[in-house]
Amino acid sequence: MATLDEGHHYLIAPDPAKRGLTRRVTGRDQNGDLSEISVVEEKPLTIFLNSQEIVTAMTIGDYPEYLALGFLRNQGMLSEEDSVTGVDFDAELETVVVRTAKITDHEEKLKKKTRTSGCAVGTVFGDMMEGLSGLKLPQAEVRTSWLYSLSATINRTPSLYLEAGAIHGTVLCQQDRPLVYMEDVGRHNAVDKIAGWMLSERVGAQDKILYTTGRLTSEMVIKTALMGIPVLASRSGFTAWGVEIAREVGLTLIGRMRGQRFICLSGEDRLVRDADPAQIGDESARHGRKGARR
Amino acid sequence: MATLDEGHHYLIAPDPAKRGLTRRVTGRDQNGDLSEISVVEEKPLTIFLNSQEIVTAMTIGDYPEYLALGFLRNQGMLSEEDSVTGVDFDAELETVVVRTAKITDHEEKLKKKTRTSGCAVGTVFGDMMEGLSGLKLPQAEVRTSWLYSLSATINRTPSLYLEAGAIHGTVLCQQDRPLVYMEDVGRHNAVDKIAGWMLSERVGAQDKILYTTGRLTSEMVIKTALMGIPVLASRSGFTAWGVEIAREVGLTLIGRMRGQRFICLSGEDRLVRDADPAQIGDESARHGRKGARR
Repeated sequence: MATLDEGHHYLIAPDPAKRGLTRRVTGRDQNGDLSEISVVEEKPLTIFLNSQEIVTAMTIGDYPEYLALGFLRNQGMLSEEDSVTGVDFDAELETVVVRTAKITDHEEKLKKKTRTSGCAVGTVFGDMMEGLSGLKLPQAEVRTSWLYSLSATINRTPSLYLEAGAIHGTVLCQQDRPLVYMEDVGRHNAVDKIAGWMLSERVGAQDKILYTTGRLTSEMVIKTALMGIPVLASRSGFTAWGVEIAREVGLTLIGRMRGQRFICLSGEDRLVRDADPAQIGDESARHGRKGARR
Repeated sequence: MATLDEGHHYLIAPDPAKRGLTRRVTGRDQNGDLSEISVVEEKPLTIFLNSQEIVTAMTIGDYPEYLALGFLRNQGMLSEEDSVTGVDFDAELETVVVRTAKITDHEEKLKKKTRTSGCAVGTVFGDMMEGLSGLKLPQAEVRTSWLYSLSATINRTPSLYLEAGAIHGTVLCQQDRPLVYMEDVGRHNAVDKIAGWMLSERVGAQDKILYTTGRLTSEMVIKTALMGIPVLASRSGFTAWGVEIAREVGLTLIGRMRGQRFICLSGEDRLVRDADPAQIGDESARHGRKGARR
């Protein structure tokens, strides 16, 4: 079980200076002047479950093992009963293989599906939905003072986003402390990397808050629910199905969080309003994170 | 061939008032007050090529036929030689079936792939890359005055984005005129819907400009190149691989377009600088589109 070092907020924080995550490229700006900017890397990574090829994700390339583990877990392809015997990343082949002691249910299902229709693509989403049936997220408290504090800390944390833009961030938090901050170009890779880290470190979910810069779509809500995290907050907006699923599983869903403003569309009962919004003020254009959809 | 009505900018524009695209949901804001907002719909749509299930896309639900046609075309699953005999959307089953006169190359390939590895997921991206080899986009001119005008018009066009947020937009343009403005929750659905419209209406690509609110990732660049459009512009930022591919195929790639500012990282030779950036000024916070990643 990972423990929190009180002196440092993050167990894992972005490392914008790390080699291989960004590249300098040169172009010309609106005045025709040469301009050099940082852009994020984006590489294919093919995930295998034992000998079964599952998916090729487009990723920034850090933490491939967490990404593979978390992806398989969040898709319901890897259950708690499956004993993981190894996770092997091959940088040259751009593959990561998750090995289990026994053949998994999912591989059996894929074989059956392949025999009947010739392809398993359509099952992916169905499998995720299946994992939700009957799920009720645990009781928990979330104070609005924590949310404001988390939002302020995360937006000011040095990140690939601040360095190069064009990237999404997801942060696993506990009360007002951000613990693990993952970024990725791929839509849901950041949250999958967090799921992989939680699985590896055997971190409990019931007292956690997930913060994301991305939109609160059905897939984001389903992943958070399958991870067992009772609270999901975002700067961005909602989709109708995301809200519907959150209400079904009792997930606290908070969106459009900017400055003092937010709206809670599900699981309002967990919210403890201990902060005065007027004291928080509005988000200044200068300190706001540009990158989020309303 | 669709012709442009000079009196109206758009051949297809967003219809934010259309039933079934947004839903009103009620929650509580930061002050605990009841608040009702519009959120966009998000539904699964399973695309078939003849009897072959290809993919389940999460979409807002408009123009399912264009989405299916454009997706298959952009994935290289449907070639120009394939004669499309029908596109059947079934709202209840949430499916769309694209029928061709003969079995397509892609279905043959899928069968082979399925026999050898049991699943075809990993081939999707490979197929797209394959279509790029040897591709060189045509000569074209793009005036900076057109780009500034397009950007201003598009940002002020009534849209689902302005109504409900949490959605991406892609606009097919010719010179300074936006022609077809598609929106979707799904990452690349908006551009696929444009590809489907172009295919249906037999619209030429060589004199078009594609404008997107989304990031300039490899997939966005590949799709634009496969569509034969020589210019791609965005408010958002780049990924390294997106830039690399654009340079290989000679695509003009313009990003971080806000107010007078932009940077061109590929295909600079097509740019004609006929506007004075200083006359454009900076984007005001009020008129800026919030939803884009730097």
